Amino acid sequence: MRITTDTAALASCFDIIEKALPLRTTIPSIGNIFLEATEDNLSFSTTNLEMFINCSIPNKNDQSGKILLPPKIIDIVRYFPTEEITIDINWDNYRLDISGGSSHFNLYGADYHDYPVFTLPDHTENESFVFEQNIFKKNMRKVVFAASNEETRPAFNGVLFQFNNQHLTLTASDTYRLVVKEISDDSWTINNKKCLVPAKAMRELLRIIGDQNQNMSLSVTDDLLLFEFGQVQLSARLLDEKYPDVSGVIPKEYKSRITIDRKVLEDTISRASLLAEGKNQAVNLLLKEQKLEVKVSSQQGSMEDFVPVEHEGEDLELYINSRFILDFLKLVDDNSIIIDFHGDGGPLVFRLPEDDGYLYLVLPIKKMN
Amino acid sequence: MRITTDTAALASCFDIIEKALPLRTTIPSIGNIFLEATEDNLSFSTTNLEMFINCSIPNKNDQSGKILLPPKIIDIVRYFPTEEITIDINWDNYRLDISGGSSHFNLYGADYHDYPVFTLPDHTENESFVFEQNIFKKNMRKVVFAASNEETRPAFNGVLFQFNNQHLTLTASDTYRLVVKEISDDSWTINNKKCLVPAKAMRELLRIIGDQNQNMSLSVTDDLLLFEFGQVQLSARLLDEKYPDVSGVIPKEYKSRITIDRKVLEDTISRASLLAEGKNQAVNLLLKEQKLEVKVSSQQGSMEDFVPVEHEGEDLELYINSRFILDFLKLVDDNSIIIDFHGDGGPLVFRLPEDDGYLYLVLPIKKMN
Repeated sequence: MRITTDTAALASCFDIIEKALPLRTTIPSIGNIFLEATEDNLSFSTTNLEMFINCSIPNKNDQSGKILLPPKIIDIVRYFPTEEITIDINWDNYRLDISGGSSHFNLYGADYHDYPVFTLPDHTENESFVFEQNIFKKNMRKVVFAASNEETRPAFNGVLFQFNNQHLTLTASDTYRLVVKEISDDSWTINNKKCLVPAKAMRELLRIIGDQNQNMSLSVTDDLLLFEFGQVQLSARLLDEKYPDVSGVIPKEYKSRITIDRKVLEDTISRASLLAEGKNQAVNLLLKEQKLEVKVSSQQGSMEDFVPVEHEGEDLELYINSRFILDFLKLVDDNSIIIDFHGDGGPLVFRLPEDDGYLYLVLPIKKMN
Repeated sequence: MRITTDTAALASCFDIIEKALPLRTTIPSIGNIFLEATEDNLSFSTTNLEMFINCSIPNKNDQSGKILLPPKIIDIVRYFPTEEITIDINWDNYRLDISGGSSHFNLYGADYHDYPVFTLPDHTENESFVFEQNIFKKNMRKVVFAASNEETRPAFNGVLFQFNNQHLTLTASDTYRLVVKEISDDSWTINNKKCLVPAKAMRELLRIIGDQNQNMSLSVTDDLLLFEFGQVQLSARLLDEKYPDVSGVIPKEYKSRITIDRKVLEDTISRASLLAEGKNQAVNLLLKEQKLEVKVSSQQGSMEDFVPVEHEGEDLELYINSRFILDFLKLVDDNSIIIDFHGDGGPLVFRLPEDDGYLYLVLPIKKMN
């Protein structure tokens, strides 16, 4: 079989599917790229079993066929010297001859029969949402950062999607902090469905989707969440874990509320974090007299500073993980943010004035004195 | 003592002296910054014993004194919120109070008496060269990359400086490859002097000196090479090792010479290196019929390509470490380069058409067939 196609289009396609190629695997076949060629199309797929990505290029081919390509072909195409690339496949020995201009590469592919089969859901059978890519990206970024990377409690490695008619609620937590984001759209119709999606897959998805306002669709089945945009399909295998009910953690009424300049707070906490120590990276916050005082004291020295705030409710003092605050402040671009306090030992809830469907809750650190 | 100075000037000074701060050291005092304040000047010094850097800021101070500052002060100044910074030093307990605007830091300094004393050479006693900074930088970059990082043969961790009246010869090698660069200037006068300077110190120097055509001076003593530019002094302790005589390695006459497009060769070798394997990263070069053929064959597959050349002399075939070629091709910006071959098993000598004082010699790999 001879394939002749545009080198840049092939390289862009490889940039996308590379995200699901496992670096190490005990199943040799999934270390490869699955190519399915039809007369009008080249379809490339990869999977790490948790996530599956497929990217297609419309292309006229002289034959149909399926083969596994070695991942080395990604680098070769990326640095290929000509605008067009020709790949000849010998079905007898899986030899690949890749040529263009004076360059000629020879690689070995493999039989595709060992490759895991993915059956993507059929649209007509499924319930689906439509999002603008940039809106999905903006929202998911502000959620997924709070999910845990530690494998001790697997449910917290996921982002919870809760569908209810016109509403989608996204939840992520690592048990020390929690994000809840509600999104609504009149055109949505999925009713009472929950699914827990690996945060890792969402992080890779964020690297792939663009900042443009083109649509992407999201379909739900019993074991998959499927995203489709342009020539790309990405499906994430749902986590089979029970997500704890976190709604009880969010207090109904605040005891103190401040509105604060985001950038000034970020800079001040960044400086305090230079002296914060240990696993908790603790800094001390004191709320009083229209000021948020920020203090830290460690073996290396001490720091104190303050940020003027609009303040209602009672004064208070608490310790907090400075990294948790910075993670959030760096992600958002609002000029000011709202922080609700819930007394000694109660959580801090960060809210965005421009987005009342969003909250970021952080538990304070208990200090032994 | 109270010091009030410009935050940006102090941060720039710290960016420079940070290069000689040891990350780990068994001598606690050299983990710090040595500050010497006079009424008109602040002088900051660091050393890792191999290299010593001093940077001064003209500044009016209310007192004179010396103290060791903890390295944490570098981060604090870098992120300080105000344009001016005030540092109060309490001589009784070495407490440093760093303040500006609403920010206040407190750190602990230390007594300077344990800090190693550096006596910089006095200009009147020394022989010295003057260079333009950008010319020194451009030349040293093309030399120092060939020095070894392995500690098994310490002489090859150095760059050899050989002064002879109007001539300076720089030499670096890791035993597999060798750079020799001759520079001449009528104003120079140092006669018959050799010194071996740690390549590490030269790499840090390259990070500090600018691309401008301002002068820097270079002075030689029995145990130091001293560079001075602007408010900065950098001295490197000479290596007390015997450098082997490498002049015999450079063949007098070539058997074949090619002139080749640098960028096309770099791209071709880069692609070949995708399949090159093992410690030697071997690629096969074949010179024939006004072409340089590049081939590689490994467990992953094979590649062949060619680059048109202007060719004089005999045909030949040899194996070479592709990384050694790429290191050099990426450093130079000449449109074409000259390569001299010296028969089977003989070295390759790369020359720059625009710079006849420069040569880069690479030994071929012996292949067992």
